[in-house]
Amino acid sequence: MVISSNSMTKTITRRSFLVSSVVTAVSTAFAAQAPATAGAPDPKLMEDLVAAYRILAQQGVLDGFGHVSARHDRAANRFIMSRSLAPELVTASDLIEFDLDANPVDPRGRSLYSERFIHAEIYRARADVKAVVHNHAPSLIPFGVSTVPLRPMYHMAAFIGNGVPVFDIRKSFGMTDMLVSDSRKGRALAEALGNKTAVLMRGHGVAVVGSTIPIAVGRSIYLDLNARIEAQAIGLGGNITYLDPQEAQKMMDSGENRAYERPWELWKAKAMSK
Amino acid sequence: MVISSNSMTKTITRRSFLVSSVVTAVSTAFAAQAPATAGAPDPKLMEDLVAAYRILAQQGVLDGFGHVSARHDRAANRFIMSRSLAPELVTASDLIEFDLDANPVDPRGRSLYSERFIHAEIYRARADVKAVVHNHAPSLIPFGVSTVPLRPMYHMAAFIGNGVPVFDIRKSFGMTDMLVSDSRKGRALAEALGNKTAVLMRGHGVAVVGSTIPIAVGRSIYLDLNARIEAQAIGLGGNITYLDPQEAQKMMDSGENRAYERPWELWKAKAMSK
Amino acid sequence: MVISSNSMTKTITRRSFLVSSVVTAVSTAFAAQAPATAGAPDPKLMEDLVAAYRILAQQGVLDGFGHVSARHDRAANRFIMSRSLAPELVTASDLIEFDLDANPVDPRGRSLYSERFIHAEIYRARADVKAVVHNHAPSLIPFGVSTVPLRPMYHMAAFIGNGVPVFDIRKSFGMTDMLVSDSRKGRALAEALGNKTAVLMRGHGVAVVGSTIPIAVGRSIYLDLNARIEAQAIGLGGNITYLDPQEAQKMMDSGENRAYERPWELWKAKAMSK
Amino acid sequence: MVISSNSMTKTITRRSFLVSSVVTAVSTAFAAQAPATAGAPDPKLMEDLVAAYRILAQQGVLDGFGHVSARHDRAANRFIMSRSLAPELVTASDLIEFDLDANPVDPRGRSLYSERFIHAEIYRARADVKAVVHNHAPSLIPFGVSTVPLRPMYHMAAFIGNGVPVFDIRKSFGMTDMLVSDSRKGRALAEALGNKTAVLMRGHGVAVVGSTIPIAVGRSIYLDLNARIEAQAIGLGGNITYLDPQEAQKMMDSGENRAYERPWELWKAKAMSK
Repeated sequence: MVISSNSMTKTITRRSFLVSSVVTAVSTAFAAQAPATAGAPDPKLMEDLVAAYRILAQQGVLDGFGHVSARHDRAANRFIMSRSLAPELVTASDLIEFDLDANPVDPRGRSLYSERFIHAEIYRARADVKAVVHNHAPSLIPFGVSTVPLRPMYHMAAFIGNGVPVFDIRKSFGMTDMLVSDSRKGRALAEALGNKTAVLMRGHGVAVVGSTIPIAVGRSIYLDLNARIEAQAIGLGGNITYLDPQEAQKMMDSGENRAYERPWELWKAKAMSK
Repeated sequence: MVISSNSMTKTITRRSFLVSSVVTAVSTAFAAQAPATAGAPDPKLMEDLVAAYRILAQQGVLDGFGHVSARHDRAANRFIMSRSLAPELVTASDLIEFDLDANPVDPRGRSLYSERFIHAEIYRARADVKAVVHNHAPSLIPFGVSTVPLRPMYHMAAFIGNGVPVFDIRKSFGMTDMLVSDSRKGRALAEALGNKTAVLMRGHGVAVVGSTIPIAVGRSIYLDLNARIEAQAIGLGGNITYLDPQEAQKMMDSGENRAYERPWELWKAKAMSK
Repeated sequence: MVISSNSMTKTITRRSFLVSSVVTAVSTAFAAQAPATAGAPDPKLMEDLVAAYRILAQQGVLDGFGHVSARHDRAANRFIMSRSLAPELVTASDLIEFDLDANPVDPRGRSLYSERFIHAEIYRARADVKAVVHNHAPSLIPFGVSTVPLRPMYHMAAFIGNGVPVFDIRKSFGMTDMLVSDSRKGRALAEALGNKTAVLMRGHGVAVVGSTIPIAVGRSIYLDLNARIEAQAIGLGGNITYLDPQEAQKMMDSGENRAYERPWELWKAKAMSK
Repeated sequence: MVISSNSMTKTITRRSFLVSSVVTAVSTAFAAQAPATAGAPDPKLMEDLVAAYRILAQQGVLDGFGHVSARHDRAANRFIMSRSLAPELVTASDLIEFDLDANPVDPRGRSLYSERFIHAEIYRARADVKAVVHNHAPSLIPFGVSTVPLRPMYHMAAFIGNGVPVFDIRKSFGMTDMLVSDSRKGRALAEALGNKTAVLMRGHGVAVVGSTIPIAVGRSIYLDLNARIEAQAIGLGGNITYLDPQEAQKMMDSGENRAYERPWELWKAKAMSK
């Protein structure tokens, strides 16, 4: 019944509860005031969401931190994500429904990701987004802190042909603990994302979006690869021809990597067989 | 029965069918007009081709994308490759026979690699080539987009002693989706390859050829390693002595890495035991 | 009964035994003069310490060398670490109790880590430290020998927001074999550490401390990652915005990575299942 | 009964046989003229030699190429190495005895490593050497072709404190296929090695020696690690303090990494359990 301060305190504050301690027991009474459920999501969605956690861990994009979510297929104002847990350990029973204020429908005292506001506010701002990944891939951190921008090196990264913005939390919030741990910070991040496919977070990580779970996962994997490729290309010391924005657009128009169907089948088989 | 637009649309256009949708059902009537089979290939060839897919995945040269093919041992105008599938999942039952227009003999509605034209046109242009690998190895992308050329660093890469050309699809085709998805683009790539062992594709990947499956696979593995070694050598900042073209030629004359017999036995054992 | 010179010779010298050979048999009589035991530690502590060895090996922070220790939960002047053994092989039966002179309570002729003085002297100097890791992670060695300092790149490395000192054994001890193999050298290292969370050792490795085993382990893993990220960021050639010391402090204040509870559960499950 | 040209042709030439083809059948009569055996080596030596092949493959120092040998424990003019085989596949039954002209005692038509002359001539020149490793570790190739020398970064690489010479086959032999495939080339390599612990081979790889199998294996593993560390340190762009030759000497005097006893136990357990 004990949950961490980062996860629940903010939710409680939003509901005008008086919080006297950083570690708070959630009473049954509180749970009763949680948002109503939109009903059970499509089992396929749940299965794919669990697979997404495992795949991103197996591919090295997520380690013990980071998370994935999916918008509820029957309610645009609900999304699903795991309780606070290392991605590799997530199972269907760890998935929790949230509203767009990042309030859990039925937390049952479980610890929550403190940065679930990243997901909530992106879903609120972007109707086209059905899945969100937040990760700390080591290859991406340099591009979030350097004056050198992340750019598309090859067709597999066409989805960043129109650029990757960088969100610097310091601009709006000054000195912070760097975490997007409330709705205001989530909104600022969603604004920085704009209509793009990904947003780097300075000194922190990245948020990647997609119209399906496989697309958000595939983009996360190839964003990581693209960053490594760009770093290596810069290291060669010559001049670089980046993917032209028009080439990127044509790749997107012809079906971005066939919606990652081909690797998704492989990734899922490997991740779920463990 | 539904196949993707990228794979079949072009084939159908070549045959003057009217295509009204990007996703097209292949009727039984259509399949009846497919090229005639040249008969069953040598079972050893099929076994080695399946192994090649698995080996290149296990060695990290292929991920969920890319493909390998082999020329039919009984018909110079036919080649074999998998249906559209992640390399790690390929089995003998996924292998399909194609003619040099990249038309499948017996597709049975299976989805096809949209870039099978890479293979078809190289087989048409190079009678000596019996196997082709197309991959997106991250180490190679930088050399396809940089003014710094890929050069042989050590005897294991003697097969590129005579240079690796770079194919830039933009030169002949302007702004595209970067894919070699029809015969014209395949021919332009084969021309860029010329009489070499590999051709880099700007912002995309590489095509590697060989007179046997083990040679095309071995070259793919050591091309990747050589690229990583060159990047590291450049990073040291000193002057580099590259393998001399005459040294490379002598290595080739004395039997290029013994035709990769020694590692092939190992690679195959490891890849097929999974 | 034969133990290595590096491990026991110094201990014996401290006790004014005359040592005539670099390899010395420890007599039963000697063992009788060992420090008295403080009693059995909490079994959970022992279990976590074994896990720490295995986790750090599995994460690539330790290889066949390096070690972890924990302060005895019932005696501030005692600590526990393995006999001299590759980390991946450590089990509960390999754990030995030591006093703060690095004398073993009950060595039973087992070979000891020659650098156990790193641990002993840090426990003596820092009452807040309950766990110590010594490793040679390849990513960290460059920052111990370069004029370029290790700096925090992202929130996961907030624990080095106040800087990482470098211990150069040459300053106090001149030309040595680089090992911290006696109490004097251990004290000099502890002084260089000061009140920080880690200290780089020039041409050698690092010592990392924490108030719990999971914290010392988590810091070791993210110190390694941070070093790799910094090297990559420098390689891009642009200007870098490092984590601000105030941001780092706020992250620490809000609970440093939640004390690594979330990944610890995963790391331990994976390391102990092998 | 068919063996490859690279391996046996040179041997036959030394014996004044007329060779008319690059692929030669070895007659039973020829085998009868092979050098006499020095008797069975210590079974422990054979076991450790098999382990050495497997360990170096598992550690990524060897891939499908490269080899290890050990001097016969009962005959200084004999050494043992595998038939031509990928290291990961070597078992005791693949080990063959050779004389210092690299002639096999009992080849039984098995294919031989064409570069066994590396081993033979080092054993002839260096009485102190009991084990030799030849590998193509990617991290080392850059230092064999660059004007930037390989230098010791930390105590684990103290064994190169006195420098690593570079053998350039071109200086004595002009344009070659880069292989050390006869006794003359082997002698030139042994001369370049001198009294050192390793010699880089330009555009090819390295030869590493030791007074025991674990020492030659351990040095191979840490030479690879040291090269990666040096490349990363150079990439930081600052000034570097290398291990002082006196520090390296003191490390060697105090027992080079305790003869790698600690990791050897681990490496062997892991390599032989597969």
